[in-house]
Amino acid sequence: MPAPATPPPRDLHALFDPASVAIVGASADPAKWGHSVAFQALRAGNRRPVHLVNRRGGEILGRTVATSMAELADPVELVVISVPAAGFESAVDDALAAGARALVAITAGLGELGAEGEARQQAVLAKVRAAGALLVGPNCLGLADNTTELYLSSDPFPDGRIALLSQSGNVGLELQLRLARQGLGFSRFVSLGNQADVSLVELVRDCARHPGTDTIAVYAEDFRDGRAFAAAAAEAAALGRPLVLLAPGGSDAAARSALSHTGSMTSPTAVIDAVCRDSGIHRVATLRELAVVLSALHNRSRATGRRVAVFTDGGGHGTIAADSLEDAGFTVPALSDEAQKAVRTALWDNSPSANPIDLAGLGEQDPLCYARGVAALLGSDEVDSVLMTGYFGGYSLGDFGDASAAEAEAAAALAAHAAVSAKPVVVQSMYPDAPSCRALAQQGIPVFDATEDAVRALAALTPPPVSTGAPLPLPASAPPTADDGYLASRDLFAAAGIPFVPAVSACTEEEVLAAARRLNAPYVLKATGLLHKSDAGGVALGLEDEEELVAAHRDMTDRLAPPGFSVEQMADTRDGVELIVGARQDPRFGPVLLVGLGGTLTEVLRDTAFALAPVTRAAARALLEGLRAAPLLHGARGRPGVDLDAAAEAVARISRLAAAHPEIDEIEVNPLLATPRGVTALDARIVLGGSGGVTRARS
Amino acid sequence: MPAPATPPPRDLHALFDPASVAIVGASADPAKWGHSVAFQALRAGNRRPVHLVNRRGGEILGRTVATSMAELADPVELVVISVPAAGFESAVDDALAAGARALVAITAGLGELGAEGEARQQAVLAKVRAAGALLVGPNCLGLADNTTELYLSSDPFPDGRIALLSQSGNVGLELQLRLARQGLGFSRFVSLGNQADVSLVELVRDCARHPGTDTIAVYAEDFRDGRAFAAAAAEAAALGRPLVLLAPGGSDAAARSALSHTGSMTSPTAVIDAVCRDSGIHRVATLRELAVVLSALHNRSRATGRRVAVFTDGGGHGTIAADSLEDAGFTVPALSDEAQKAVRTALWDNSPSANPIDLAGLGEQDPLCYARGVAALLGSDEVDSVLMTGYFGGYSLGDFGDASAAEAEAAAALAAHAAVSAKPVVVQSMYPDAPSCRALAQQGIPVFDATEDAVRALAALTPPPVSTGAPLPLPASAPPTADDGYLASRDLFAAAGIPFVPAVSACTEEEVLAAARRLNAPYVLKATGLLHKSDAGGVALGLEDEEELVAAHRDMTDRLAPPGFSVEQMADTRDGVELIVGARQDPRFGPVLLVGLGGTLTEVLRDTAFALAPVTRAAARALLEGLRAAPLLHGARGRPGVDLDAAAEAVARISRLAAAHPEIDEIEVNPLLATPRGVTALDARIVLGGSGGVTRARS
Repeated sequence: MPAPATPPPRDLHALFDPASVAIVGASADPAKWGHSVAFQALRAGNRRPVHLVNRRGGEILGRTVATSMAELADPVELVVISVPAAGFESAVDDALAAGARALVAITAGLGELGAEGEARQQAVLAKVRAAGALLVGPNCLGLADNTTELYLSSDPFPDGRIALLSQSGNVGLELQLRLARQGLGFSRFVSLGNQADVSLVELVRDCARHPGTDTIAVYAEDFRDGRAFAAAAAEAAALGRPLVLLAPGGSDAAARSALSHTGSMTSPTAVIDAVCRDSGIHRVATLRELAVVLSALHNRSRATGRRVAVFTDGGGHGTIAADSLEDAGFTVPALSDEAQKAVRTALWDNSPSANPIDLAGLGEQDPLCYARGVAALLGSDEVDSVLMTGYFGGYSLGDFGDASAAEAEAAAALAAHAAVSAKPVVVQSMYPDAPSCRALAQQGIPVFDATEDAVRALAALTPPPVSTGAPLPLPASAPPTADDGYLASRDLFAAAGIPFVPAVSACTEEEVLAAARRLNAPYVLKATGLLHKSDAGGVALGLEDEEELVAAHRDMTDRLAPPGFSVEQMADTRDGVELIVGARQDPRFGPVLLVGLGGTLTEVLRDTAFALAPVTRAAARALLEGLRAAPLLHGARGRPGVDLDAAAEAVARISRLAAAHPEIDEIEVNPLLATPRGVTALDARIVLGGSGGVTRARS
Repeated sequence: MPAPATPPPRDLHALFDPASVAIVGASADPAKWGHSVAFQALRAGNRRPVHLVNRRGGEILGRTVATSMAELADPVELVVISVPAAGFESAVDDALAAGARALVAITAGLGELGAEGEARQQAVLAKVRAAGALLVGPNCLGLADNTTELYLSSDPFPDGRIALLSQSGNVGLELQLRLARQGLGFSRFVSLGNQADVSLVELVRDCARHPGTDTIAVYAEDFRDGRAFAAAAAEAAALGRPLVLLAPGGSDAAARSALSHTGSMTSPTAVIDAVCRDSGIHRVATLRELAVVLSALHNRSRATGRRVAVFTDGGGHGTIAADSLEDAGFTVPALSDEAQKAVRTALWDNSPSANPIDLAGLGEQDPLCYARGVAALLGSDEVDSVLMTGYFGGYSLGDFGDASAAEAEAAAALAAHAAVSAKPVVVQSMYPDAPSCRALAQQGIPVFDATEDAVRALAALTPPPVSTGAPLPLPASAPPTADDGYLASRDLFAAAGIPFVPAVSACTEEEVLAAARRLNAPYVLKATGLLHKSDAGGVALGLEDEEELVAAHRDMTDRLAPPGFSVEQMADTRDGVELIVGARQDPRFGPVLLVGLGGTLTEVLRDTAFALAPVTRAAARALLEGLRAAPLLHGARGRPGVDLDAAAEAVARISRLAAAHPEIDEIEVNPLLATPRGVTALDARIVLGGSGGVTRARS
């Protein structure tokens, strides 16, 4: 299903291609930000007027400095504000008075410092919005747009086709260094700062439409509206501009305070992983991985499957690469006799050709064989991509005479073969900086010095094994529920179409006996109105007859004095699989669905899958089939398979229920018994959101 | 328990420090191996006589070439043989006739090519052994010993303290390039080749005693005697020379052909992991990781726990490092108020000090704060190691004036603080090649350009969370068993002290009923003599009375006509955990023990742990406690814990049984029911090894 229709993004033209610029707080002191930004801004020469403003006036970098915005004759479209926090408001006022359409606020000490700063920031925002202007920051490190020669950050960002949106300055600096080695650079750089006005989401949407940008790189600890971010990323991917996300720092504090299994297992990082999987986002964990994936995406080919040919000039490198690929979920299939023959024809008969394919010494004699080998492998319908590994590059460095020229020729031929193939080629080389490797990289074949980088790059060029599709829009909210007791929870699930095991409420011994007569033995007796009724000894299973039921009722009454009981028919779990299906309200992403292996093993095995709720039945089924325990659902070792359609339908219904009830913090059915004959909920729990904290559930 | 006592290793003096050397097959053609080895050998100058031999005579590299070994006046202690395979035997004969004590056979085309070559190799080996000489190779790429100026490989290996034993030439070449960036080099290099005589194990044992070696690096696809390798590595670690192993290419073919759960889950790579864990071996998967761990081990400090302080000059880098550490099983604990105060005193009040600790801009003003911060953190008893990450190094590169000198001073002070601390410090820097970073590396503080490398390095300096101790010696073999039927298997386990659920063999309906009267209901009926009796429908559980038992007997007789039955008392599994305990004969490592979560979830969840059998009860307990399902054993969510001592004792007994029966290929109890009252085996299977293949089990 497509991403929800959203209004077109705001026009950020004043931010990325202003007619004129002023830098308020420009400084003559090279240690100050106001100096380096001024220095960078002036690099653009005559592209647009750049005014330097400092209340002390004087001269900076050979330019006369205005003492105030008012002194400037013409209106200024974009104003950089790099003044101490005390002067922030008046600098904004002056800029807006001078007609500014966009502000880049480097000034720190506002919203990031707590309530007082946040109030000041809000007041400024109101003025900016009233003036119809844009504000980046405050507390940001500037921005740059190489496609419009707009340089408003303290460092130069080399030209290229990656848009970087970052909450950290040093992160941008290191990424710059890493990408430079691959010959890659930036179309834009925006330091996000406090996102008071212009948000990450807005910037992603704008970059998704930016002709100078191929790929969007994001370093963010704070997404603001997580669903809008996911939708913007999915939109960018659909527009051919994939987003690579480095999002560290998911705190587990929320998970630790949760009251349900679902809550405690829904970690922030698991939620982000699920969002990325479904929104086409490439998630990375480190700057090295970020650079590797960005390099990979520069290769325009994409693999359609996970079968890789490993092509090597040394047995060790080939074996190491094959192992690393298999660890990463790829296969390195043995080639058919026919395919092997084609490979040996391109190489020589000495070459092991089963896969890995080994030149076996031919490279030294005939560097062009590298190109012939890759061409033969790209031409085989038995593999989806090629990983070349080992020495290539070395012939253009050492004292190999003609081999150096031949290797350069091989690089050109290899790149030409790859260009006409739809399949990606990635390279690991001992000599990634050798001229022939640099030539490959320039032709879009990424070259890395480490096997794991080449494998990671290939992963970025290969579709993930499971995706449930872009997030669905949230439904309208249902009338809120105020009762989170066990019986009310059951009613809520039952109204949503989740079948429950037959049960009757009761209180006295007589009522319990009467209830039993409406059910079949064996029975289950649950004390209601207790937090964690299982742990408290408030659940008795497998009561064979009325005598045992009465004994259990007396025992619980003595020990726990609960306000009531639920007498239930014990389900036959023998040919079933116990699932957990739940959802939690995530502060950034809203309702998040969890499915997993349930019952007593739930938290021990943590075999879980997540998606933003609601999900379709097809997506629910994909989640279930992605569990480690999926073979149990399909029927393993003589056991029958469960009714997966019914299970998926129940999961989809629970996801819609959660999405329609934002007042419910945590909601779960555990276990949901899935059998060949359908599904039955055996227990349920909801936790209502309280003001300033969660309300304790009573069940 | 210590590794088994083994005889002292052979004296390899003639190999690593011969009095004289001859190179047979020395060549004037720079493209030939016999040329580059001769060139390298002559680098040592007058250290020892080096004779070049080629039947064509003439001159090579300015030296007169002898046409045969016989032509040389003096005996030669070490002879390198680099002739075509056809001339191999006569070259060996000539060398031995000339008194050679050590041969380095570069010649390829022998044992690696199949039976005929293997026979030739064996015949040569017999002559070498008869002469009391040593042989490295054939099919090797030479050796080098920088501590004795012996250069007998085609490439120079820079001097250092790492001994590299490798089955691949290019692997050695890439490692060389990688370590050179860290200023590290080699004490020795040996290309293993076919290991006809001198084996990997022998070389490890020799390097473990080599004063010039600090660390042993091994690239091996073939360990030969895996237990001896493990013992040699454990011995090397005990002698202060840790071994780092890159061992790719574990084929899963053996696992695919296995008949038991144990067999199919015992992958070659899982076995190597277990061996490494218990023998103090650092296992790595790629050359990059190999170089990182070798760099790390150059740091002589070791952490005693997994609590890490992250020290950064930029929020992004700190957060990324903290996440990466937690993903790798470290903790990044919040520091106490007291510890935070000490950190802020060393830095400034602006510094976030909870952990990660952030300089928050102090670095630019005062590079010495890096050293003060590290010192304060090393002094805290709340952390076991320090990971510093970010910009450090940059001040000695850019235009920072005094900052460059101050950073050099900070590097020296930081190294001095680390030297007096027992705790390791590792560094990630954007500028790892900056002078101050190089200075740190020279002082044993490894500096990496990637966060994941710094984290991996710290892992190498931190004890693994679980180890069961060095492998025990194999016991004497028990009288072999020839019957792998179900009943015989039960008897074998029972004799080893594994309690079984009460059971009686039966055949006719009358015998089945008689058996039932000796047991308590409910019953289990198993058809014996069937392969995969569960899958075939040959197991009926939960037969409530004699009527159901008889019905099951009739049904199985009709469907399966089995040779017999076992009538068993159904175990009460409600408060128990079903385990799988088994062992498999591994071709390289002998009997390998598996413990895991058993029952229907066994192969789905693959929650398993491995060790070389036999194991002590303590080791068995450690394996059980290392399972993901360990919380179930300890009692989770209101369930009682199981009798872990009894479970561990049963595991140890089964491991001894497997070790005493080399004729049994696969042996397993599944499930072994562990309850608070002890353990009971509910089913068992053995698979006997056949000639040229496994004998199918009948149970």
